[in-house]
Amino acid sequence: MAVMKVHGNPLSTATQRVLACLYEKDVEFQFVNVDMAAGEHKSENFLSHNPFGQVPAFEEGDLKLFESRAITQYIAHEYSDKGTQLLLPGSNKTMAVLHLWKEVESHQFDPPSAKLIYELRFKRFVGMTPDSAVVDEHEAKLAKVLDVYEARLAQSKYLAGDHFTLADLHHLPNVEFFKRSSVKKLFESRPHVAAWVDDITARPSWIKVLDLQKQKV
Amino acid sequence: MAVMKVHGNPLSTATQRVLACLYEKDVEFQFVNVDMAAGEHKSENFLSHNPFGQVPAFEEGDLKLFESRAITQYIAHEYSDKGTQLLLPGSNKTMAVLHLWKEVESHQFDPPSAKLIYELRFKRFVGMTPDSAVVDEHEAKLAKVLDVYEARLAQSKYLAGDHFTLADLHHLPNVEFFKRSSVKKLFESRPHVAAWVDDITARPSWIKVLDLQKQKV
Ligand SMILES: N[C@@H](CCC(=O)N[C@@H](CS)C(=O)NCC(=O)O)C(=O)O
Ligand SMILES: N[C@@H](CCC(=O)N[C@@H](CS)C(=O)NCC(=O)O)C(=O)O
Repeated sequence: MAVMKVHGNPLSTATQRVLACLYEKDVEFQFVNVDMAAGEHKSENFLSHNPFGQVPAFEEGDLKLFESRAITQYIAHEYSDKGTQLLLPGSNKTMAVLHLWKEVESHQFDPPSAKLIYELRFKRFVGMTPDSAVVDEHEAKLAKVLDVYEARLAQSKYLAGDHFTLADLHHLPNVEFFKRSSVKKLFESRPHVAAWVDDITARPSWIKVLDLQKQKV
Repeated sequence: MAVMKVHGNPLSTATQRVLACLYEKDVEFQFVNVDMAAGEHKSENFLSHNPFGQVPAFEEGDLKLFESRAITQYIAHEYSDKGTQLLLPGSNKTMAVLHLWKEVESHQFDPPSAKLIYELRFKRFVGMTPDSAVVDEHEAKLAKVLDVYEARLAQSKYLAGDHFTLADLHHLPNVEFFKRSSVKKLFESRPHVAAWVDDITARPSWIKVLDLQKQKV
């Protein structure tokens, strides 16, 4: 079997999502660093891996993928017998519940999160000032999403049920950022959400992702 | 087997996505109209179907789902032997390519599309004026996405390969809106994209969705 390669950057949240998955599955892979400061993700070579010019990109022999959640889905299926079982195999119905919570992450949690990370991290990084009206608006949206999570996590330990799955894992990069920002109050004030955050961010796979990040900074 | 029920509104793009899938699979279902003008989607009863208070919601016996793309995924898997084969079964690798293009729809195509539909349809509907700077910004984003589609569709008839799949189907509601709006120029000026739009919007399943819409207006 061809070696898996991840082209990405340890500071990119989308790259971190894929790395967390690979560490959970305990499979070997090669990390190819993409120098985003130098614009390498817009080079002709990188665009042949991902025409959108974004990290991460993935390859395994002939298979070339991009979009972090498509990559984690492939790894979870292809290496279903390795490491942590990140799916809910059994029936189409159990898989549907997992899929539902993955869609919630993509369509409810990620959009306000991405806006907040843009305002609070990216703008500060390039010396701009976050727009407090935009921050307030997207904190309010995220708060509503977390109300739904609080009710859900009162019923089951993880989003899709009693096991940690891709649905939880996909949240890790954004959640980690929020833990270190003013947005953390939204998570801390909801006890089941707070316990879930503590649990998932303490996973050894995630600690490895954070370690890799520290090495590169 | 319990009867499938879709709670939604024929004017909602997310509801249309699920209806198109059900018509492709040629399976029986019951449509439960949600009166959004009367705020029925925020009623206690509807919130028990979808805590986010959005249409569509889906049920089949004990199984309750929401998020349109989680519903189509379930239907495509559960009824894989009925109607059009909307997946690429065979291997994890063929499914990965399908999944990649579904993710592209969710994370690249849908965000600027939703913004444009908000400006051009929703704002006009409630008597507000579209903000032309916002329209320009999101048309430019969508144009870049369609450049990638043009290159892809020069290689294969449909996004995930030679067969119509969920990856194409998920685009139908937004594409139909754009066909009838000023945004259509972005589609018409790209020949492979234009041919793809003509092909997918002419599918009998989609014509049925449009007919249902007309009945309700
Ligand atoms: N939906 C994509 C998002 C990828 C993405 O936004 N990557 C960022 C880094 S986290 C990037 O490459 N940004 C550079 C750019 O968009 O030009 C995924 O999940 O892989
Ligand atoms: N990501 C959701 C989006 C659902 C959605 O936005 N539905 C709209 C109608 S197309 C709605 O119910 N809007 C009312 C609201 O958000 O309050 C899905 O795909 O099902």
